[in-house]
Amino acid sequence: MRLVTVEFEGVPRVGVRSGSEGVVLTDYADMKDLIKDGEAGLARARAALESGLPRQGLKLLAPLTAPSKILCSGINYAAHSDEDAHAKLPAEPSVFSKLPSSIIGPNEAIMIPAPDCQADYEVELAFIIGKTAKHVPKERAFDYIFGYTVMNDVSERARQFRLQHETIGKGVDTFCPIGPEIVLPDELADPSQLRISAYVNGELRQDAHTSQQIFSIPVMIEYLTSMFTLNPGDIISTGTPAGCGAFMNPPQYLQPGDHVTVEVEGVGRLSNPVAAGWKA
Amino acid sequence: MRLVTVEFEGVPRVGVRSGSEGVVLTDYADMKDLIKDGEAGLARARAALESGLPRQGLKLLAPLTAPSKILCSGINYAAHSDEDAHAKLPAEPSVFSKLPSSIIGPNEAIMIPAPDCQADYEVELAFIIGKTAKHVPKERAFDYIFGYTVMNDVSERARQFRLQHETIGKGVDTFCPIGPEIVLPDELADPSQLRISAYVNGELRQDAHTSQQIFSIPVMIEYLTSMFTLNPGDIISTGTPAGCGAFMNPPQYLQPGDHVTVEVEGVGRLSNPVAAGWKA
Repeated sequence: MRLVTVEFEGVPRVGVRSGSEGVVLTDYADMKDLIKDGEAGLARARAALESGLPRQGLKLLAPLTAPSKILCSGINYAAHSDEDAHAKLPAEPSVFSKLPSSIIGPNEAIMIPAPDCQADYEVELAFIIGKTAKHVPKERAFDYIFGYTVMNDVSERARQFRLQHETIGKGVDTFCPIGPEIVLPDELADPSQLRISAYVNGELRQDAHTSQQIFSIPVMIEYLTSMFTLNPGDIISTGTPAGCGAFMNPPQYLQPGDHVTVEVEGVGRLSNPVAAGWKA
Repeated sequence: MRLVTVEFEGVPRVGVRSGSEGVVLTDYADMKDLIKDGEAGLARARAALESGLPRQGLKLLAPLTAPSKILCSGINYAAHSDEDAHAKLPAEPSVFSKLPSSIIGPNEAIMIPAPDCQADYEVELAFIIGKTAKHVPKERAFDYIFGYTVMNDVSERARQFRLQHETIGKGVDTFCPIGPEIVLPDELADPSQLRISAYVNGELRQDAHTSQQIFSIPVMIEYLTSMFTLNPGDIISTGTPAGCGAFMNPPQYLQPGDHVTVEVEGVGRLSNPVAAGWKA
C-alpha cells in the first residue's frame, strides 16, 4: 500500500494510491494520526481502498508534516565520506536532526534564504517509525518501521561548514522536501537493494545503491533507540551517497530557477523547483 | 503570572501559581494549547487565578512537553568559550537542537544511558515562543516571547566531542530538564540582568550573569527567524556560562546518585537526581 497526503476541499487529507494516478481518500486529515492508530489505522486505509472511489488530479502535499523529530545520518555511504574532507569514515553512526518546520512536499519550491547561501541537494532513503521504540535490538528493528519515503536533505553548505553545527545548515525552512508517497513494507521487501539518484535540471549528479550504506537500517534503529525514544511518525533518513554539488570541482550549488529531482527505486521520485527566498 | 503543569487526577493539567505553594488549575491539559490560544489563553489563565481555589502539594511536571523544536546556543558566554578548547568565540550565533523526547520535569531523574557516558550539566535561561515568527527584526523580538523558564542542557560529552554532532550528545532521553515554571514577561522585566548558577550535590559549579551573553535574545530571534519559522511553544535556550564539569581539572562528570540544581534568578530553581539508566 502507498499512502499520500493530498489537498481536498482546501485542507489536507490522507489518501491511498489506487493505480498510478488515482487516490482514494481516508477519513484522516493527518498521517501521524493514522500511524498512531497502528493496525486500526492501516485497516481503515485498506477498507477505504477496497470500497472508495479513486479520484484523479488531487494536489500532493508532504505525506507527513509534524514529526516529533527528524534524524539523519551524517555520513553513511563510503564514497560520500571520501569526497567530504570534513568527514572521516565513522566507527558509529553519525546523527544530526533536521527541523520539522523545514518540511515541504513535492513540487513546492526550495527557497534559498539569502544570496550568500550555498544550497545543495542530498538524495536519501528515509523511513518512518510506526510505534514507540526504545532499546530495540536490530533483529526486531523492522517491526518498528511504518514505511519508506524519499527525502532531499537540502543543505546550506556555507553555514554547515563554517559554523560546524548541522542545525543551521540543515534546518532552513523548505530544506526538507519529502514524498511523494509513503510506501508500506508490503510493497518494499528489501530497502537495502535500491538504486538511489539525484538530478539537477535533468543532469544525473548522484547515482548509487542503498547496498553501499555503511550502517544498515536495523543497526541505526538499535543505535538510536539506545539513546532516544522514537515516536510514531518520526522520520529517520539514511544518508546520502557521493555526487553532491559542494564536492564537485568547481562546486555547483543550487541556483534560483534550478529544478532538482531525487529518486529512490521503488519508493518514489520527488521533484522541487528552486527559488530565491530574499527580496532583490 | 507564573504557569506550571501539574499532575491532577493522574493526568497533566496547566495551572497558575498562587502564592509560593498554591496552584490554581485551568481547563488546559497541554501548555502548548494555551500558548496557541494567544490572548484568549492568557485571559482564561487570569480568570482562573482570580476565581479559582489554590490547591497545595500537586506534583509538578515539565511545564511544556512537546515543542515542535528546541534550539540552543552552542557558545553564548565568553568565559565558557574560553574554557572549551573545541569552541571559538563566534561571529554569529551557533545553534544546535535538542530532541523534544529528551524533556523531563523537576525532580525527575536524569538517566545516564550507558557506563561510558560522560554526562554534564549546563544551566541555561530558556524562553518560549508565543506566536509564529519569521523574519522578526530584533526591535520587535520581545513581542514573540511567551515566557521564560530554566533549562539544564545536560550533555553527553563523550559522544558530543568524539562524534562532533550535537544531536547525540545533547538529545539523550531525560537530558533536557526544564521548569519548574514558565514566568511570563509581566514578572520578568529584563532577562539580560539575571544571576545564573548551577550546583552539584550543593557545591556551586557555575555562577555567572545573563548580562555576559554574547548574543542577546533579540539578536538570536532575528537571526533564527531569518532561517527558520518559530512556532508557538518552541523552546529557545540562550547558552551556558563557564563551570561545566567537562572543563574542570580533572573533569567531573555527573554520577548516579548525584543531585544537580540549576537556577536563574527570578525565573526558577530546577533540581534533578542522577541515576544509572543501564542494567548492572
